[in-house]
Amino acid sequence: QIRRMLNGLPPADAAHLIESTPHKIRSVLWQLIDIENEGDILQHLNDEVQSQFLRQMDAEEVATITEGLEADDIADILQQLPDRVIREVLDSMDHQDRIRVEHVLSYDEDSAGGLMNTDTITVRPNITLDVALRYLRRHEQLPEMTDSLLVVNRNDQYIGVLSLRKLLVSDPSVTVREIMDTEVEPIPARMSSREVATLFARHDWVSAPVVDENSLLLGRITIDDVVDVIREESDHSLMSMAGLDEDEDTFAAVLTTAPRRAVWLGINLLTAFIASAVINLFEGTIEKVVALAVLMPIVASMGGVAGTQTLTVVIRGMALGHISRDNSRWLINREMAVGAINGLVWAVIVAAATTLWFDDPLMGGIIGAAIIINLLTAALAGAVLPLAMKSLNIDPALAGGVVLTTVTDVIGFLSFLGLASYFYG
Amino acid sequence: QIRRMLNGLPPADAAHLIESTPHKIRSVLWQLIDIENEGDILQHLNDEVQSQFLRQMDAEEVATITEGLEADDIADILQQLPDRVIREVLDSMDHQDRIRVEHVLSYDEDSAGGLMNTDTITVRPNITLDVALRYLRRHEQLPEMTDSLLVVNRNDQYIGVLSLRKLLVSDPSVTVREIMDTEVEPIPARMSSREVATLFARHDWVSAPVVDENSLLLGRITIDDVVDVIREESDHSLMSMAGLDEDEDTFAAVLTTAPRRAVWLGINLLTAFIASAVINLFEGTIEKVVALAVLMPIVASMGGVAGTQTLTVVIRGMALGHISRDNSRWLINREMAVGAINGLVWAVIVAAATTLWFDDPLMGGIIGAAIIINLLTAALAGAVLPLAMKSLNIDPALAGGVVLTTVTDVIGFLSFLGLASYFYG
Ligand SMILES: [Mg+2]
Ligand SMILES: [Mg+2]
Ligand SMILES: [Mg+2]
Ligand SMILES: [Mg+2]
Ligand SMILES: [Mg+2]
Ligand SMILES: [Mg+2]
Ligand SMILES: [Mg+2]
Ligand SMILES: [Mg+2]
Ligand SMILES: [Mg+2]
Ligand SMILES: [Mg+2]
Ligand SMILES: [Mg+2]
Ligand SMILES: [Mg+2]
Ligand SMILES: [Mg+2]
Repeated sequence: QIRRMLNGLPPADAAHLIESTPHKIRSVLWQLIDIENEGDILQHLNDEVQSQFLRQMDAEEVATITEGLEADDIADILQQLPDRVIREVLDSMDHQDRIRVEHVLSYDEDSAGGLMNTDTITVRPNITLDVALRYLRRHEQLPEMTDSLLVVNRNDQYIGVLSLRKLLVSDPSVTVREIMDTEVEPIPARMSSREVATLFARHDWVSAPVVDENSLLLGRITIDDVVDVIREESDHSLMSMAGLDEDEDTFAAVLTTAPRRAVWLGINLLTAFIASAVINLFEGTIEKVVALAVLMPIVASMGGVAGTQTLTVVIRGMALGHISRDNSRWLINREMAVGAINGLVWAVIVAAATTLWFDDPLMGGIIGAAIIINLLTAALAGAVLPLAMKSLNIDPALAGGVVLTTVTDVIGFLSFLGLASYFYG
Repeated sequence: QIRRMLNGLPPADAAHLIESTPHKIRSVLWQLIDIENEGDILQHLNDEVQSQFLRQMDAEEVATITEGLEADDIADILQQLPDRVIREVLDSMDHQDRIRVEHVLSYDEDSAGGLMNTDTITVRPNITLDVALRYLRRHEQLPEMTDSLLVVNRNDQYIGVLSLRKLLVSDPSVTVREIMDTEVEPIPARMSSREVATLFARHDWVSAPVVDENSLLLGRITIDDVVDVIREESDHSLMSMAGLDEDEDTFAAVLTTAPRRAVWLGINLLTAFIASAVINLFEGTIEKVVALAVLMPIVASMGGVAGTQTLTVVIRGMALGHISRDNSRWLINREMAVGAINGLVWAVIVAAATTLWFDDPLMGGIIGAAIIINLLTAALAGAVLPLAMKSLNIDPALAGGVVLTTVTDVIGFLSFLGLASYFYG
């Protein structure tokens, strides 16, 4: 009865159930799925689970189960396979399908071309709406998410869109040219999927045409796939801050998970040793004044928190497209000013608390000064690092946090212990 | 010419430009916008910038500029205002509009009811498609994102949907009943917007009907607004990890930003003092063996990193709806196993490095043991905390990180310094 339940679910729900299952039970569930549902369910699984199942199939099987899927979804699935297998699968597909899939595969996975489908319905500008309506009626069914017809010239170059909403309320005797919308800019096939998502969100599109350099209509992108891009982007920011991949399977096996996590721990261990080396420089001072060892984590952690806040605001602002060369100076200055104010405020409070705790006003003054120095450093590093990384093509969401906290740890220990060794030394 | 440029841009682009501008220039830009464009642009601004401009308007002005917007967008704008002003604005609106907006306002901002529009096109099941098509043609224009007609009975109760795609290819003489889709479950008005977003993403909807407890059709939700929900959710996870609000204006003034950041710094300061208090317990041991002060941040930071990884995976899994009571046990065990493996691996490496650095195998053994203890603690805390917080209705994205790192700091210092005081004490 589990088999019947699984095969009766909508494919997306079955996929969600499979993703929510620990990896061992997962293989059992997959075996219960009828072959004719496998493709439909497979396309909804996340990349990692997908490739787990694909690894057990041969090229012929992959070609069979993906038959009938949309070209963009087949391309997504094939991209999980090694190049040699992709070739084999394509060879097992029927000619028409192969052409369509090869078309999508020829573009980068993260570009408009890789997101598009080739299932457009096109009309010429000179026909009347009545003719267009009769042409539509000759179709068995219209492609998913068809909200408009694409208007092209005799060379298949994009001219404009005719929305179904307009088609349905306009006088059938007027021509397409008279009511089509030529304001909608087509999407160049090489545009990144992130930019495509921004355009869709901003203009509230359901679908949009994709063209090559010569305005030749190649296909169209639909909002359902853009929604997936948006969700992946957001997963990416969240997961990479912890050194994880957005495709990571929540229920991966222990032996798959452990080595992945280990890499990030190793990188952080290196940075921790750097901080320790800094502390080691002041061994003598700490021996004399043990309170320094007690207080030094406070200075480092305040810097880390303040820097992470700045870093997050800047990374988010870059993702939203708010930050450009023109306004980044202003933003850096704003962050420095905020760092100075909060540095002062918390320096006073920490200095007072320290003075009371250790009955030592000098110690209070030293920790206060170190906090101001570290919060200014944190603001500067938090704002400049992501901008610099972006221009070097390093992902700031991945590397930003590690570099930032290394900076704030080092500067925190250096300023606090350095000042202390000067005054107590 | 700036005025002409601003007013010529699509409203969403003008809004983006305004959001990307430091707050002082922003007010200048806003004054350059013609009154008839203000409403259109306002609806695209983020909440914080919106309320900045709204604060300078009286109720009459708000009513004027929002005239012609969709009910859901007017409701969004009004929700930025104090209750008294909302009342005044509603009183200045024309009767029809007021009814529609009050309808949306009666539901929670973060529910399906708060997301919906009332601009549905409804048909009865017994009419023919030909009649339906003629009915459509009587409209001046169809509402934005209309991809289907909603089929209702004589009591206005929802029965099914008739997609335009089907309407356009089917025989005009069949009845709506014969080709309508009754499989689409309507959305209850009280469903949370997060669940609505999951449904849209999973079923690839463009719009979906909203009903009350008696199946009465209330309105429909469209994908453009769902896209905004998805983007806000993702912003929320990212920003709250740093104690920030997702509505935060990237270019807010220094004096607006500083106090907001200060709160989070204060909370973290408290946790830092807790960690310091733990270190202070072992003052005597540190005085004897200064190397402890040099090495202790390593133990704490390894725990913090490992715990954050687990926390992130679990928070992401909860957001995707992967984690339930059934599989959370498995997940906690998996994380503990991963923690044990990585604890062992890095314990050995750190122990070896420490032994070489300080020429002290006992110190190596102690730090290794402390790392194993702290990584196991981190895995347990990282997995259990978000689950516990969720059941207590605390946002784990906001509070999880602070509590987690407090735990890993305390346990890290306690295990390392505790073991050391036992062996060196
Ligand atoms: Mg995929
Ligand atoms: Mg693709
Ligand atoms: Mg939008
Ligand atoms: Mg698609
Ligand atoms: Mg798809
Ligand atoms: Mg990927
Ligand atoms: Mg909001
Ligand atoms: Mg709303
Ligand atoms: Mg809004
Ligand atoms: Mg989807
Ligand atoms: Mg809307
Ligand atoms: Mg909207
Ligand atoms: Mg909010």
